[in-house]
Amino acid sequence: MTDVLARLVAELGDAVVTDAVALSIAQADKSGHRSASAPLALVSARSIADVQTVLRIATETGTPVVTRGAGTGLAGGAIASGGEIVLSTMAMNRVLEINEADQLAVVEPGILNGRFNEILGERGFWFAPDPASKAISTVGGNIATNAGGLLCAKYGVTRDAVLGLKVVLADGRLLDLGHRSVKGVTGLDLTALMVGSEGLLGVIVEATVRIRRAVPGVVATIASYFPSVTDAAAAAAAITAAGIQPSVMELMDSASLEAVSTLLSLPGITTGEAHLVVQTDGPAAQQEADAALAILHSLGGRASLSTDPVEGERLLAVRRSMHPAMERLGTTLIEDVSVPRTALPAMFAEIVRIEQRYGIRIPTVAHAGDGNLHPNFIFEGTEVPDMIWQAADELFATALRLGGTLTGEHGIGILKKRWLGLELGDDQLDLQRQIKRVFDPQGILNPGKVF
Amino acid sequence: MTDVLARLVAELGDAVVTDAVALSIAQADKSGHRSASAPLALVSARSIADVQTVLRIATETGTPVVTRGAGTGLAGGAIASGGEIVLSTMAMNRVLEINEADQLAVVEPGILNGRFNEILGERGFWFAPDPASKAISTVGGNIATNAGGLLCAKYGVTRDAVLGLKVVLADGRLLDLGHRSVKGVTGLDLTALMVGSEGLLGVIVEATVRIRRAVPGVVATIASYFPSVTDAAAAAAAITAAGIQPSVMELMDSASLEAVSTLLSLPGITTGEAHLVVQTDGPAAQQEADAALAILHSLGGRASLSTDPVEGERLLAVRRSMHPAMERLGTTLIEDVSVPRTALPAMFAEIVRIEQRYGIRIPTVAHAGDGNLHPNFIFEGTEVPDMIWQAADELFATALRLGGTLTGEHGIGILKKRWLGLELGDDQLDLQRQIKRVFDPQGILNPGKVF
Ligand SMILES: Cc1cc2nc3c(=O)[nH]c(=O)nc-3n(C[C@H](O)[C@H](O)[C@H](O)COP(=O)(O)OP(=O)(O)OC[C@H]3O[C@@H](n4cnc5c(N)ncnc54)[C@H](O)[C@@H]3O)c2cc1C
Ligand SMILES: Cc1cc2nc3c(=O)[nH]c(=O)nc-3n(C[C@H](O)[C@H](O)[C@H](O)COP(=O)(O)OP(=O)(O)OC[C@H]3O[C@@H](n4cnc5c(N)ncnc54)[C@H](O)[C@@H]3O)c2cc1C
Repeated sequence: MTDVLARLVAELGDAVVTDAVALSIAQADKSGHRSASAPLALVSARSIADVQTVLRIATETGTPVVTRGAGTGLAGGAIASGGEIVLSTMAMNRVLEINEADQLAVVEPGILNGRFNEILGERGFWFAPDPASKAISTVGGNIATNAGGLLCAKYGVTRDAVLGLKVVLADGRLLDLGHRSVKGVTGLDLTALMVGSEGLLGVIVEATVRIRRAVPGVVATIASYFPSVTDAAAAAAAITAAGIQPSVMELMDSASLEAVSTLLSLPGITTGEAHLVVQTDGPAAQQEADAALAILHSLGGRASLSTDPVEGERLLAVRRSMHPAMERLGTTLIEDVSVPRTALPAMFAEIVRIEQRYGIRIPTVAHAGDGNLHPNFIFEGTEVPDMIWQAADELFATALRLGGTLTGEHGIGILKKRWLGLELGDDQLDLQRQIKRVFDPQGILNPGKVF
Repeated sequence: MTDVLARLVAELGDAVVTDAVALSIAQADKSGHRSASAPLALVSARSIADVQTVLRIATETGTPVVTRGAGTGLAGGAIASGGEIVLSTMAMNRVLEINEADQLAVVEPGILNGRFNEILGERGFWFAPDPASKAISTVGGNIATNAGGLLCAKYGVTRDAVLGLKVVLADGRLLDLGHRSVKGVTGLDLTALMVGSEGLLGVIVEATVRIRRAVPGVVATIASYFPSVTDAAAAAAAITAAGIQPSVMELMDSASLEAVSTLLSLPGITTGEAHLVVQTDGPAAQQEADAALAILHSLGGRASLSTDPVEGERLLAVRRSMHPAMERLGTTLIEDVSVPRTALPAMFAEIVRIEQRYGIRIPTVAHAGDGNLHPNFIFEGTEVPDMIWQAADELFATALRLGGTLTGEHGIGILKKRWLGLELGDDQLDLQRQIKRVFDPQGILNPGKVF
């Protein structure tokens, strides 16, 4: 037993896990990456004090710490390797307060987003951030990655839902950032800086978040099919241009639709067809859906609308089946570039070019309401081949050229480290590194990630 | 002529202003403070290159720089004094791009918010941040203070409207932060960190902001009167609790209403009465207004509703006349605490207690939709007397105790420096200072402000 491990056990008892299976799980997340060696130990923190103890010991011994929520990340941010302590927040999963009148809740970081929403739902409230992984990812992880989702064009990303955070610094000190009031501009906005910081600046141990009252009225869902992805993208753009604000607007290219069609045995899909699903909610749900339907029809789409919840879920099922459909095709590298909405058609055209150039398949879905694309690079085997990275490299350069970004919602982690400078430039990269150093002078928090 | 001034003139020619009147204006903003001595010079920057030149010279000579928009700030952030260069962004006032399809615009920092909205309005768009000073304050200043306004409970604060920023650092380097896409999580969120940074971290020289499509349909306005501010606050809370989302919900206590009533010769106001004005917009404007009206009546309010734009403006005029009405009462220190919405009645009660204890008047208005209060401390003369500061000190401590913050939208500037540690705590204050140092190692940007 190393000295560090002995100290952890002495101070934290059976919160310290050294079970081989648990350590092996912490070597991976959902990015497809896996570290070369098992971490030193996993601490399943039960309280803020536990987190402080881990970080105090880590600082005193210079031991790296990888904070881990549910490990559903797609960028490798929660992956740990030899010599590192995994600090799991999963056991800190209580809802500490729900304040309906102030429309806020206080939660521990380990609560699953879906579970939190179940609890809120019983009171007629909800938490807007809705990554497709909401059933299996933690609110702390959502905050640390500034998670997006299907609803964020209308209801915002995670950052928009965070009022305040308690954060344990690398040396074990506890900070209380932000406020319970809706507004506040005291000093620099460190709350916003923590959101999306991928475990580099501190451990989020408590969050005060906005909750919303359930949206009353019907939800209208339209599923539509277009002869090509360009047509479908044009239809999405026309809906936005008409001033309609869908709650969901999801685009699938023909390769994606074909794969899902095979999985679900969908009838009547023609090769080359693309899919656009649009959902509206709120007081104008019906009018907005009627207007959207007319646009889809006028642009040559086959489209059907339903305000029945069961039928609506069925229409959305095509989009929701993307992930399982991809798993059937081979191993996937799920990418996450984001571009201005109007650049979506250009980006889809570039993806076709990259497919042809490298002789690979890249089925792609997009959050058409906000311009975030998820190209799925398909390959054989478990390691991402160099050729796929070359193709991804072209994808990133293209997204940046079109005014976009490397990552719309998944983060940098270890997956996109090597491209970070391309987007930020040397001066900004250097500044970001210095900010990291202010929070974590020894560099023990998630070393080797992002920078 | 000092060496610094000579260098400025040599490189920037007639952009350098040393006119006594211009320098005297830069010794104050709208906070009521005035510096003891005139600054060295004012540079009216015409371009990013001009800003870079100023900062290069400032860094080389160790000269402090105060960035100044329109000087409407209420915290003293843009006040300059002896030996300092005032860097005015007012002449950098172009709209560089309006992209309707991507719902974004690119602007220079010096454009007035109101002027920007006029230009957008011609195309059926608007920029949501709406400080009451919109006609006279700059978009750059709005960003540097994270300005709020009447509409922000529904449409967000300035931070929510900023996608990307170009920033010149203290040493003259130009950084390009953020992106044009709706979403993006590449690296730390320095864009959000810059918003509300009050000129401490760099000079904002260009902004890419979200613009919104004009909200279609009627705007409904309700003006209501209640026997006491407690009743009016309860009515505001009941509207929120009913799931209604007003675009505007403004509360005035009896002292405020009385002063406005005198100014406008309003008929039929009884002593002690308070005022609540509610506005709804969007597809459900009429239903929401009807529901709100029923609540106001049921809670004992005298209320009238109008969907006529002219009549609506007339109903809002009572609230809009607060500032001129206060000017008649004496000199005012306009405060800006923010508390969770449900703490509004408690905060109003505390303000009465403070009034009585110090024998002063503190007419107060509140953005009831988000819990932000503006207590107006009235006094004689031009300097804020110590006794008023003592009363303000109690106000701040109370707001913090109720879960609130020192400043909801005006910022810290020089006005609230001495209370900053009270809210942030020593550890966070120290961290914030270190971040400042990363951006501005010599401490030449707005020295003596905030920290
Ligand atoms: C099927 C599937 C669908 C997905 N869909 C989406 C989607 O629609 N939108 C989206 O944005 N993402 C999506 N993701 C990615 C992932 O679920 C999100 O990034 C999620 O927010 C991660 O949460 P987690 O609890 O699993 O965090 P982890 O994977 O455990 O950690 C993610 C990062 O956050 C850090 N971290 C975690 N908790 C803390 C904490 N308390 N304090 C400090 N740092 C912390 C970690 O160090 C790591 O860098 C999807 C993933 C899968 C597998
Ligand atoms: C009648 C009245 C009503 C008001 N109502 C509101 C309100 O409803 N909501 C609200 O939030 N505020 C309000 N204010 C306060 C003020 O108008 C806002 O703070 C506004 O955003 C300041 O803009 P400005 O251009 O005047 O900035 P200034 O006063 O010139 O500067 C404010 C701060 O920002 C910094 N700064 C300015 N430009 C830049 C730049 N380009 N780069 C970096 N730093 C910069 C300055 O250094 C200073 O610290 C009101 C003021 C008045 C007089």
